[in-house]
Amino acid sequence: MKLLQDKIRNEATIIDNRIIKVDHFINHMLDTKLIMDIGKEFSTVFPNATKILTIEASGIAFAVATAFHLGNIPIVFARKSKSLISGKELYHANVFSFTKEVHSEITVSKEFLSKEDKILIIDDFLAKGNALEGMIKICNQANCDIVGAGIVIEKGFENGRKLLDKYHINIHTLANIKSIKNNQIEFINE
Amino acid sequence: MKLLQDKIRNEATIIDNRIIKVDHFINHMLDTKLIMDIGKEFSTVFPNATKILTIEASGIAFAVATAFHLGNIPIVFARKSKSLISGKELYHANVFSFTKEVHSEITVSKEFLSKEDKILIIDDFLAKGNALEGMIKICNQANCDIVGAGIVIEKGFENGRKLLDKYHINIHTLANIKSIKNNQIEFINE
Repeated sequence: MKLLQDKIRNEATIIDNRIIKVDHFINHMLDTKLIMDIGKEFSTVFPNATKILTIEASGIAFAVATAFHLGNIPIVFARKSKSLISGKELYHANVFSFTKEVHSEITVSKEFLSKEDKILIIDDFLAKGNALEGMIKICNQANCDIVGAGIVIEKGFENGRKLLDKYHINIHTLANIKSIKNNQIEFINE
Repeated sequence: MKLLQDKIRNEATIIDNRIIKVDHFINHMLDTKLIMDIGKEFSTVFPNATKILTIEASGIAFAVATAFHLGNIPIVFARKSKSLISGKELYHANVFSFTKEVHSEITVSKEFLSKEDKILIIDDFLAKGNALEGMIKICNQANCDIVGAGIVIEKGFENGRKLLDKYHINIHTLANIKSIKNNQIEFINE
């Protein structure tokens, strides 16, 4: 998605050739027009989805935009914090966050996923692939059909796809970063 | 908002005449059509807002819908978790969550709020008013103009507005619950 790639190239702050700070339009302040455009793009790539699965917090905005453009299909967001609901009623998966260096559990209430769902997984970032793997595992527990995963920014150089190969998921990334050298970004498939 | 009030009356689970469980359309699974309608409603009540402030995670969906209907104005969401950014660069406020019984700090990067902003605060729930007060305090630190607060569900019987009186904010609630008796909900201003 050229619009997004240009914005990242021109406006993201790069730290140590590794951290991409997009706080001012992706994950702290949100550029609503860009988010709606991103949702539209995902909706054209995955027109057959019947439900969206994302993860709190920064996936939610993109999930809403995508669900809207898919005719207001429902969204489920996986929770990171402990819920008051007992474990028996939850699907859960362990996710290691390399950014925060913590293990955490993500959960989804069993009542909100079923084998009839055609799930589109949406997330803002794909790096080493752990969060996406957690959501795939939850879909597999629920025997959902996964139509694909829509990722806004992928740090391709962190090889998350290798971890995910075995799940055979159609991953569509809007801005896939091949490398960062001297704080300059190079995208894959430009 | 009759549509929302009817949905709460017919579909919410009430626990102990106090807890309103709306996980299946408000804060775990999301009814996208309802969320977009709620955003439209807030946009007509607060047409002069130039930026939305909300709080992660469950405020974000309503913020996106409202921002879209206000012509794609920007959104800032306050963060609950510690950031890598130093404290000097953040506005912050302490918030006590009665649901989770924990004190937490919410933060917003100073660069994303300015005295030119006309802020509409959006949140899913108003109970004792602590989260909303935290967001008001952050706006006041930034010398923003607050045009109002749009709340989806208010537990009026928990008297959050008393805490907030001194700030003279225009609070617009779509479903304000006066009381719950025998697990039956009565709304204010029907």
